[in-house]
Amino acid sequence: MIMENLQKRAIDKSPLCVGIDLRQEHIPFEITNGGFDVENHFVEYAKAIVDLTTDVAACYKVQIACYEAFGIPGLKADKEILKYIRSKGEYVIADIKRSDIGSTAKMYAKAHFEGELEADIVTLNPFMGKDSISPYFDYFKKGKGAFILAKTTNEGSKDFQDLIVGNRSISSTVLDKVYEWSKELGDFTNFPNMGAVVGVNNASSLNALKESTDKLFLLIPGYGAQGAKLEDIKYLMGDKMNGVVNVSRGISGGLSEDRDFRKSLRERALKLAKELRY
Amino acid sequence: MIMENLQKRAIDKSPLCVGIDLRQEHIPFEITNGGFDVENHFVEYAKAIVDLTTDVAACYKVQIACYEAFGIPGLKADKEILKYIRSKGEYVIADIKRSDIGSTAKMYAKAHFEGELEADIVTLNPFMGKDSISPYFDYFKKGKGAFILAKTTNEGSKDFQDLIVGNRSISSTVLDKVYEWSKELGDFTNFPNMGAVVGVNNASSLNALKESTDKLFLLIPGYGAQGAKLEDIKYLMGDKMNGVVNVSRGISGGLSEDRDFRKSLRERALKLAKELRY
Repeated sequence: MIMENLQKRAIDKSPLCVGIDLRQEHIPFEITNGGFDVENHFVEYAKAIVDLTTDVAACYKVQIACYEAFGIPGLKADKEILKYIRSKGEYVIADIKRSDIGSTAKMYAKAHFEGELEADIVTLNPFMGKDSISPYFDYFKKGKGAFILAKTTNEGSKDFQDLIVGNRSISSTVLDKVYEWSKELGDFTNFPNMGAVVGVNNASSLNALKESTDKLFLLIPGYGAQGAKLEDIKYLMGDKMNGVVNVSRGISGGLSEDRDFRKSLRERALKLAKELRY
Repeated sequence: MIMENLQKRAIDKSPLCVGIDLRQEHIPFEITNGGFDVENHFVEYAKAIVDLTTDVAACYKVQIACYEAFGIPGLKADKEILKYIRSKGEYVIADIKRSDIGSTAKMYAKAHFEGELEADIVTLNPFMGKDSISPYFDYFKKGKGAFILAKTTNEGSKDFQDLIVGNRSISSTVLDKVYEWSKELGDFTNFPNMGAVVGVNNASSLNALKESTDKLFLLIPGYGAQGAKLEDIKYLMGDKMNGVVNVSRGISGGLSEDRDFRKSLRERALKLAKELRY
């Protein structure tokens, strides 16, 4: 199943999840020539990133907001990027963080697991509870997957995620619920097709989360720009390599003026993969 | 400011918020002739709904998932529907329930408050905390608005929203935080430009929420299909008429075979507006 296959790739290649969260200012001059064509330039840079990293990346993550910001042309770029990654046999996580009631969640599931914007895995927000996630279950049973937000890396994660209910934080409660719900997906060997997003930039909260995270495959954001430390990542993933680690700007950002962006980007990816492989 | 203007419309016309959450099977045969053209048929039906209800509707709510499900052609329909509503001088709520870290939230704000998918008000999910909402503040100061999810109508709202932290539910905590954050938006007369989504289908939780809801303008979903009762809505809104009440399927659903869908739809809207006006 997909999380187990993803774990295999994380072990064989590296746990690096290459984030394709492109901004206009990220695109190399070689591609833009100083102009900006939303659809073509995002897609061209994304394809270069993918081509330069497939041998070391476990998977890719595409942040839809970067493209949604540009309306229809942006979403066309999103579509082409997703399609390209999947055409190469690589896994892509659509970072959509959607949330809605059942009948509407069904429409989101259709949007991102079928048709033009199809991805292999999505990210989902659990605030609305089980019946906002269960409409995706039929897809999980057929091999699609999701990472449910449990603990995010931002300052604001303290506002609700860190609140304590009966000795457990909301984040821990989310992790426990996700594991409980995953029992409805049928048997699995190591991990169910529902995993969790767990940020590690706040080391003090890791201990409390670890018991619950060991049962799930994880998407760990924040290595680099968002401040996650390697030792915390290793602590969280343990010997089982039960997660992938997202790096976005640390691979594709700040290269717009680089005269050989391919070489620089490749070196960054190799370095990151080496650090994360242990 | 926008929530105060919306309250004025709720008083002058009615608190009815017409939900344009269209499904293929909702579209009248007169429009489809038995076929289905995603872009044109959704837009044509939506325009008819708007034209038939502007005199009694306080505002409109467009559920993006219904259109996102159809990829680019669906999102083109979403764009046209938003544009049409705004071109008539009516307010439209983009029901997007987005959530992400600051830099990404900024992209979502750009997506839905500028450019092709521009709306007047959006719905947002608070799970990631203050810095996932604050990137929208500059827009709120300039007259845009948001309804933050506090208590939703679905069964799963008990999983996290109803959990009790120090005598207060997470839903109450969200309401209090939203009001606290809204102080950064500058002065207002009755309501800040950040309001909240509060479902009333679980009457027993209303008492506990009422103290916090009185300070905010509300989007109340679930009248009709999701089971909200009129007396509970009246209890929540009180004499101040501090909210709009969404009805989607109860206006536009089940009319596909109706030989005079315009007449039926108009009658439904008039009846609902009358019930909700008090």
